[in-house]
Amino acid sequence: MHTVDLNCDMGESFGRYTLGQDEDVLAYITSANIACGFHAGDPLVMDTTVALAKKNGVAVGAHPSFPDLQGFGRRAMTMGRQELTALMIYQIGALKAFAEYYGTTLQHVKLHGALYNMACCEEQPAAALVDAVQAIDSSLVLVALYGSQMYRQGEKAGLRVAGEFFADRNYSADGTLLTRSHKKALIDDEEDAVQRTLQAILTGTIIAVDGTPLEVKADTICLHGDSPTALAFARRLREALTEAGIAIKAMDSFL
Amino acid sequence: MHTVDLNCDMGESFGRYTLGQDEDVLAYITSANIACGFHAGDPLVMDTTVALAKKNGVAVGAHPSFPDLQGFGRRAMTMGRQELTALMIYQIGALKAFAEYYGTTLQHVKLHGALYNMACCEEQPAAALVDAVQAIDSSLVLVALYGSQMYRQGEKAGLRVAGEFFADRNYSADGTLLTRSHKKALIDDEEDAVQRTLQAILTGTIIAVDGTPLEVKADTICLHGDSPTALAFARRLREALTEAGIAIKAMDSFL
Amino acid sequence: MHTVDLNCDMGESFGRYTLGQDEDVLAYITSANIACGFHAGDPLVMDTTVALAKKNGVAVGAHPSFPDLQGFGRRAMTMGRQELTALMIYQIGALKAFAEYYGTTLQHVKLHGALYNMACCEEQPAAALVDAVQAIDSSLVLVALYGSQMYRQGEKAGLRVAGEFFADRNYSADGTLLTRSHKKALIDDEEDAVQRTLQAILTGTIIAVDGTPLEVKADTICLHGDSPTALAFARRLREALTEAGIAIKAMDSFL
Amino acid sequence: MHTVDLNCDMGESFGRYTLGQDEDVLAYITSANIACGFHAGDPLVMDTTVALAKKNGVAVGAHPSFPDLQGFGRRAMTMGRQELTALMIYQIGALKAFAEYYGTTLQHVKLHGALYNMACCEEQPAAALVDAVQAIDSSLVLVALYGSQMYRQGEKAGLRVAGEFFADRNYSADGTLLTRSHKKALIDDEEDAVQRTLQAILTGTIIAVDGTPLEVKADTICLHGDSPTALAFARRLREALTEAGIAIKAMDSFL
Repeated sequence: MHTVDLNCDMGESFGRYTLGQDEDVLAYITSANIACGFHAGDPLVMDTTVALAKKNGVAVGAHPSFPDLQGFGRRAMTMGRQELTALMIYQIGALKAFAEYYGTTLQHVKLHGALYNMACCEEQPAAALVDAVQAIDSSLVLVALYGSQMYRQGEKAGLRVAGEFFADRNYSADGTLLTRSHKKALIDDEEDAVQRTLQAILTGTIIAVDGTPLEVKADTICLHGDSPTALAFARRLREALTEAGIAIKAMDSFL
Repeated sequence: MHTVDLNCDMGESFGRYTLGQDEDVLAYITSANIACGFHAGDPLVMDTTVALAKKNGVAVGAHPSFPDLQGFGRRAMTMGRQELTALMIYQIGALKAFAEYYGTTLQHVKLHGALYNMACCEEQPAAALVDAVQAIDSSLVLVALYGSQMYRQGEKAGLRVAGEFFADRNYSADGTLLTRSHKKALIDDEEDAVQRTLQAILTGTIIAVDGTPLEVKADTICLHGDSPTALAFARRLREALTEAGIAIKAMDSFL
Repeated sequence: MHTVDLNCDMGESFGRYTLGQDEDVLAYITSANIACGFHAGDPLVMDTTVALAKKNGVAVGAHPSFPDLQGFGRRAMTMGRQELTALMIYQIGALKAFAEYYGTTLQHVKLHGALYNMACCEEQPAAALVDAVQAIDSSLVLVALYGSQMYRQGEKAGLRVAGEFFADRNYSADGTLLTRSHKKALIDDEEDAVQRTLQAILTGTIIAVDGTPLEVKADTICLHGDSPTALAFARRLREALTEAGIAIKAMDSFL
Repeated sequence: MHTVDLNCDMGESFGRYTLGQDEDVLAYITSANIACGFHAGDPLVMDTTVALAKKNGVAVGAHPSFPDLQGFGRRAMTMGRQELTALMIYQIGALKAFAEYYGTTLQHVKLHGALYNMACCEEQPAAALVDAVQAIDSSLVLVALYGSQMYRQGEKAGLRVAGEFFADRNYSADGTLLTRSHKKALIDDEEDAVQRTLQAILTGTIIAVDGTPLEVKADTICLHGDSPTALAFARRLREALTEAGIAIKAMDSFL
């Protein structure tokens, strides 16, 4: 029997600014990636979001980013490995404290935005991530695009790594996501995205944008929570997964 | 036999900016209050400072502040209790992660600047501090001006509280420090400051600025590290303490 | 004949965060108070907002604040007069540059949040504001609660001062606004607020919360743009003003 | 007769942090590039620095940067052209307000750190700079590495462009600076750096690191102010320039 986790970014409000529909999204997911104050989130938002996830039985993870509130963590920055590691330890440590405050356990770490993308392709950020996870708690699950630098380095270091699959994104033949500027980057058709996800979970393969068959590992599916469409998709995906006999559980329970 | 701890603020550099003489100061103190990125310090500075303290056998503590790098945490801000608690949990959690990374234990929490002052006199910030310490680890030592709101609330909650004594400051008859704007706020004469400290430790009393005898508890003495004079004073104080048969140890060992 | 200006805070989005309904609000107002990046707004948002105001024929003003994005400028901070002046010159100068870029003129300055409140009651912030306006351009209009410290100091310095009236707020007998925590602080009834505003403009008096008649000067009315109700009120107020024969014009034209 | 300007970065302190030896440096230079609060500087520091430059008869310029205090503006960030333009208008506008406050005129704009480097090689940042200068005041002098993207675009747009020469840096055959990581990037020998500068000014050529002769334009020489050595070099360079009959004047007077 197949099992899959559903993850979504959360806690992205900041001070007076509200972003996302966290309460609604929590009904559909099993793992929450909670912003740690560098691209979004502030201490009070983190506190509230962890409490909300706990209440909804959703596992919590840290979602560290470059220090760039104005750019929402989507602008790449050049940093050395030691600085990257410190950046991640700081943010993961802060979120872990809230998790413990609410009597729950930090389940996973997923990098955000430009930092996630860099750790897919570059050695140093991927190595920094492995260092940071080992520094905090080597039983944490590292969420990573299957086959990426951080996926491979995590596995090599003996960490628990969750292969992440993007339901609404097209892949290149080399296993990377098509950049957002590519006209075929996004899969707009909901049913198409659902079927690709089922295929990824059940067969471990998808078809890249150029027709090449591609091996994937879909331990956790990345959902979005920033639009009514996103919520509708989450609902539809859960139905389809259940009909296909795929169990939906927090990644900690099956990795 | 009497025992006393010597604490000093550290890790106050930020990015390109260097502040303090951390390496020199570490030779004289037993406990380091490490900035957590809100009034000073950044993740890389925190990492380096914790490593340095560990190497020098100095215990590490978190030094949380209002979010105000420009004002160095010296500007009072109005916040509700829940926000204050979250602010502290965030910062203490972040520093604790670095302590664990370097295989050491977080020993204490000491608030910084305007937040320290508010928690001396106001109920809410003091209560938030107690909440935060209990949330993180109730065996942490809370460093507090003897007799202050946070001192009393910490004791009442059953926490380990270290009475802090300021060697170079004059006290009012009510046990508070004279504000810095008062012309007698600072005790400039080094020998005077040393003798007051010895008296505070050995007799548990000092004389307030108006002549009133005052009960104090001097578990830890606050030193400074930002001038050559400060280092000379630290050296002289250690000598005087040793001559008087007072043991100098990290607070964790005797509270 | 009576003339009045209608002002509203704008440009409060930041990076990924959207706040307010600027495009809708612009149809109802004559003066926009544009955030300058310290409590809200970023350079791109300022650029866009100035362009939008220009396009809609709405006069632009600078809306400086304490440096506190997380607290949205609503937390009081202690600063000296020179620092306050510099804080304001910086923000006003930045906004003025965008105004000139779009071929329009900076019309006014209105402080934001805690800074506005402080400059109502305290001498130093009010003096700093007068200094800053004179430094930038002494023909700028200073928007100030009638009778406040900044109102009086502005007048004394020979500046053009616009008396600001708050349609939806109750006043104390001393002419200050009831603090938001007071249960009667807000006037919830729309028609009530409209009638008070008409009275303020036409007679120069209102009734304070304790029944005392109070002299006011209502050159500009503060509107809000953050809810559908706020827009409905703006529409209703404009109708009522027009019916009462009160002209609605940007403050620059009649002060 | 040849004339040259000497420029140096200034006003890089921030809040509690002091950086540079501004007062000493002002004796040697003719143009100050003043930080605008994004990589260094805060409103009070800007105020003080402009006043100091004025008092010393040194011309002031804006020194805009990416928004990155922690990285001191040395980390490249990806931004679109409109955002870059807004970023620059904001900072130049803020500094211009201080210049006007002190009754002086903004003379020039020089980008800082990673932003300077990007505008040397990339079209968009260079175009954004030209837009920003034209938006603020098209009589401002644009300081740019000779032959760089921003140099060429500035000239093409009809702006006054000052060719900047780096006395202590080796050049590649294509006219760009050797990256700092290159072992020959810096010219350590003081006399060597002085002679190269004289050659650049007097002959308009230097020898690239590989021996290729290179055309340069040395309207302004970039000095440093962050070490005793830097001050000694400034002194020596002034002597050498004077001996060689080269006049030292603010760029505004001869471009």
